[in-house]
Amino acid sequence: MEQKTLLIECPDSKGLIAQITNICYKHQLNITRNTEYVDPDSGRFYMRTQLEGIFNDHTLLLDLDRALPRGSERQLVGTAKKRVVILVTKEAHCLGDILMKVFDGSLELDIAAVIGNHPNLQALTEKFELPYHFIDHQGVSRVEHEQLILTQVAQYQPDYLVLAKFMRVLSPDFVARYPQRIINIHHSFLPAFIGAHPYRQAFNRGVKIIGATAHFVTDSLDEGPIIKQMVSNVDHTYSAKDMAKAGRDVEKNVLTKALELVVEDRVFVHGNKTVIL
Amino acid sequence: MEQKTLLIECPDSKGLIAQITNICYKHQLNITRNTEYVDPDSGRFYMRTQLEGIFNDHTLLLDLDRALPRGSERQLVGTAKKRVVILVTKEAHCLGDILMKVFDGSLELDIAAVIGNHPNLQALTEKFELPYHFIDHQGVSRVEHEQLILTQVAQYQPDYLVLAKFMRVLSPDFVARYPQRIINIHHSFLPAFIGAHPYRQAFNRGVKIIGATAHFVTDSLDEGPIIKQMVSNVDHTYSAKDMAKAGRDVEKNVLTKALELVVEDRVFVHGNKTVIL
Amino acid sequence: MEQKTLLIECPDSKGLIAQITNICYKHQLNITRNTEYVDPDSGRFYMRTQLEGIFNDHTLLLDLDRALPRGSERQLVGTAKKRVVILVTKEAHCLGDILMKVFDGSLELDIAAVIGNHPNLQALTEKFELPYHFIDHQGVSRVEHEQLILTQVAQYQPDYLVLAKFMRVLSPDFVARYPQRIINIHHSFLPAFIGAHPYRQAFNRGVKIIGATAHFVTDSLDEGPIIKQMVSNVDHTYSAKDMAKAGRDVEKNVLTKALELVVEDRVFVHGNKTVIL
Amino acid sequence: MEQKTLLIECPDSKGLIAQITNICYKHQLNITRNTEYVDPDSGRFYMRTQLEGIFNDHTLLLDLDRALPRGSERQLVGTAKKRVVILVTKEAHCLGDILMKVFDGSLELDIAAVIGNHPNLQALTEKFELPYHFIDHQGVSRVEHEQLILTQVAQYQPDYLVLAKFMRVLSPDFVARYPQRIINIHHSFLPAFIGAHPYRQAFNRGVKIIGATAHFVTDSLDEGPIIKQMVSNVDHTYSAKDMAKAGRDVEKNVLTKALELVVEDRVFVHGNKTVIL
Repeated sequence: MEQKTLLIECPDSKGLIAQITNICYKHQLNITRNTEYVDPDSGRFYMRTQLEGIFNDHTLLLDLDRALPRGSERQLVGTAKKRVVILVTKEAHCLGDILMKVFDGSLELDIAAVIGNHPNLQALTEKFELPYHFIDHQGVSRVEHEQLILTQVAQYQPDYLVLAKFMRVLSPDFVARYPQRIINIHHSFLPAFIGAHPYRQAFNRGVKIIGATAHFVTDSLDEGPIIKQMVSNVDHTYSAKDMAKAGRDVEKNVLTKALELVVEDRVFVHGNKTVIL
Repeated sequence: MEQKTLLIECPDSKGLIAQITNICYKHQLNITRNTEYVDPDSGRFYMRTQLEGIFNDHTLLLDLDRALPRGSERQLVGTAKKRVVILVTKEAHCLGDILMKVFDGSLELDIAAVIGNHPNLQALTEKFELPYHFIDHQGVSRVEHEQLILTQVAQYQPDYLVLAKFMRVLSPDFVARYPQRIINIHHSFLPAFIGAHPYRQAFNRGVKIIGATAHFVTDSLDEGPIIKQMVSNVDHTYSAKDMAKAGRDVEKNVLTKALELVVEDRVFVHGNKTVIL
Repeated sequence: MEQKTLLIECPDSKGLIAQITNICYKHQLNITRNTEYVDPDSGRFYMRTQLEGIFNDHTLLLDLDRALPRGSERQLVGTAKKRVVILVTKEAHCLGDILMKVFDGSLELDIAAVIGNHPNLQALTEKFELPYHFIDHQGVSRVEHEQLILTQVAQYQPDYLVLAKFMRVLSPDFVARYPQRIINIHHSFLPAFIGAHPYRQAFNRGVKIIGATAHFVTDSLDEGPIIKQMVSNVDHTYSAKDMAKAGRDVEKNVLTKALELVVEDRVFVHGNKTVIL
Repeated sequence: MEQKTLLIECPDSKGLIAQITNICYKHQLNITRNTEYVDPDSGRFYMRTQLEGIFNDHTLLLDLDRALPRGSERQLVGTAKKRVVILVTKEAHCLGDILMKVFDGSLELDIAAVIGNHPNLQALTEKFELPYHFIDHQGVSRVEHEQLILTQVAQYQPDYLVLAKFMRVLSPDFVARYPQRIINIHHSFLPAFIGAHPYRQAFNRGVKIIGATAHFVTDSLDEGPIIKQMVSNVDHTYSAKDMAKAGRDVEKNVLTKALELVVEDRVFVHGNKTVIL
């Protein structure tokens, strides 16, 4: 008995669930968990179905393609671990939490490599027997730097890139190479405090709650589809530095939680939003 | 176009979703929201389906009865407001929040009457032009008191009884008259601090978080299926009285949230637990 | 034995706490709770001291004035309830929660009157035997409208104005009349979604958490010192309307919590921030 | 300029703060942060004062001893890191988070060694160049096992022992050796689900929130003074195993947060409670 997850996104129409579940039934597949969502504004239908049984992927997808309306996307996903390359700069906490959760089995990821524009996190990465590539951004143009990263990334053929406090803005060309496949942690409760130094901004504004946001990267800075947000209470005794320190726990927790959702194939991108089934 | 919600609970079997959604499709009903759950331990299947269209309730249910396995329960629920009778003692905050939310349209409930074993909340109830029955527990036996309440309740034929800080324990005989239809708010994070004076208990234990629990009432004190829980941070500066005061907000918020879930037909009782779809 | 609270704000200097607490001791006053804070950036010192004893306000303040550095502000506050006028538009939930909490004794406020630019909340206000002034903004200029409100407010001589979902922006002239004495609830997690329709903005951005902010009103829209913020989780199934509904609980809870802090004389304004002792 | 923290616990009496702060002033010490608390039930006074200046510890403490009432405890703490020995069993997440936070500088601790009753976490510990002592509990009596641990611990002379998911109950004799110096993480929201398998208990009870509790260890199982509690929402789809997985994040966050409070000398033990200044 195998387990696979069927992911469908298509224009909504009457009888869709019946058609899809009939096909699964015809294939003798048991549905162990099923979630659907219809977006009332766009009329898009989203469905995530965990199936159990003996799979004939080819005929199952063929049957689905016959039944589904034009403009449908469907995918049958097995249980292989997602492969990621992690990009970092100097801060250890997000990388550290991912490494630790993969190590202790909480997060089912295959970390192919870590790439840093500083050498700081090499030692940490190598503690976990993973390759670390230090690709300096100094002395090269922005375009060249990104090209060096892309070349290094390409050899690993990752499913996702994870920006674990990678403190450089990626160009639209870079982003276009991995659409909806780059996950970033922004250290604010977006859309508050877009851009640089969010904790400094938060401190100056005198907020009573700070937050962090995991999102897919798009061309527009910090405007991509949000996967997960978390917050933490602060008060007047917190300096910008204290907020940054308190924020680290939020950042790492929200990033690994977002990765968990992605790993379980629960995140659909819908325009600049996510649907999480 | 009408809107109704189909609620199904039955033993799980392969093809169930296909069968049920086929029947809906055959009846030309559109599924606007659908949620299912299979409990892996008991093998029970739960489904909540929001439907839109022209309903022929009789034939729809007949078709479902033919398709569903033995031991199934199914219900087709319209949009009529649930009718409740609220039982209270002296504290105003839970009753007050329900009254206010019904008044401002946040909570779609039909409050038939309020019954109190003290006269304290009569004035508040009558501000909202609702009948208040003061049924004193003094001078009568426990059995007689409950009988007086039951008689008063019966005339209203409520869907649910809501214990909004009703500070008396109901007898098994009383509970048996409204199985899975009595909703209580307990002022602790159950199962911590069962029974009387939970804030005093919480204070004595030196907890750093207090909570409240909305649950269905069963024979066993504070052991019924939990619908919703919420918490609030406290610290060493809180006296038992301060905790009780801070707890009031949690209590009222958790009770009205639980009522919202019940009102939307989202709560299934499964042994001593709830499944919320 | 009386109880009073001493509030001090002044430039920091060595020995301040010793000097102040010596004076209290000399006056035979017992300190039951004491909190201080020195803002490291501005070097401002804040102190809130709950005192118990027989007070000679005049000599106590005289002694303090001799001891405190230039530029000090000090205040000795008794236990009289703060007097407020509440401004509203159409939405009932924030007003309702304040009325209910004052009614049940959770919030020690003296509500002098409610003023609305719509008649909608008159009935609710009058249930609690409070005066409601409907001051229509139609058919008068903005300046005239504010003047009508100010005249009405003036007769009550309130300590604070509470904007309980008052959906009009107050002019700088109006605000200047009650500096640091107008408390507003903004229905977003500021500084995200400043201005109109924050839930619509939040929906469009696809956030996973919504919030509300209670703050003092200054000239700049939604830029005043933040007193309290709270949040609530949402997901892709929430429409803008659902977010607004879920937001109502956050709004009312954060507003009454902020009022509680103000009522207990715990809020100091420090530039565009608050210090809460 | 040095920085030290003065910790005082004594019977409350009028003028205490004045006396203490006068002594600090006489010693030319600047108070950068000060917090006090008087427990109204016991009449105990607690004070934590951050001081800056040139310290003469001996005469400062002498002056304080003259001024403070009988039954006082006072301590002047420098900025040296606390030294801890960590006890573990098999689960990596709490140990991992401490290691990572010490590594990245978020948690200022000196980890002297890790001791495990299983060999599982040796590799992880050694990644961070720390000694790991595997002390098997099999083949020895409970008393012998504890004696072996105590001997190993003794050579490090730690300030605190941290039980980072050490799954054995310590005997009163062991606990008596490190009173108020053993910190445990219990994987439930105490006092709910005392003892073994709290997630299984939580699952069986059908709770909607799980939690974790960091506390000092006393003779009574899971009854010691609570330092910190945190919670996380769950629902009917969580198996006991899912709850345990979700709980890991809560556990590690609450334990490192509690350690942070201890490291900053903010935790006073007061009977079976804590006062956190």
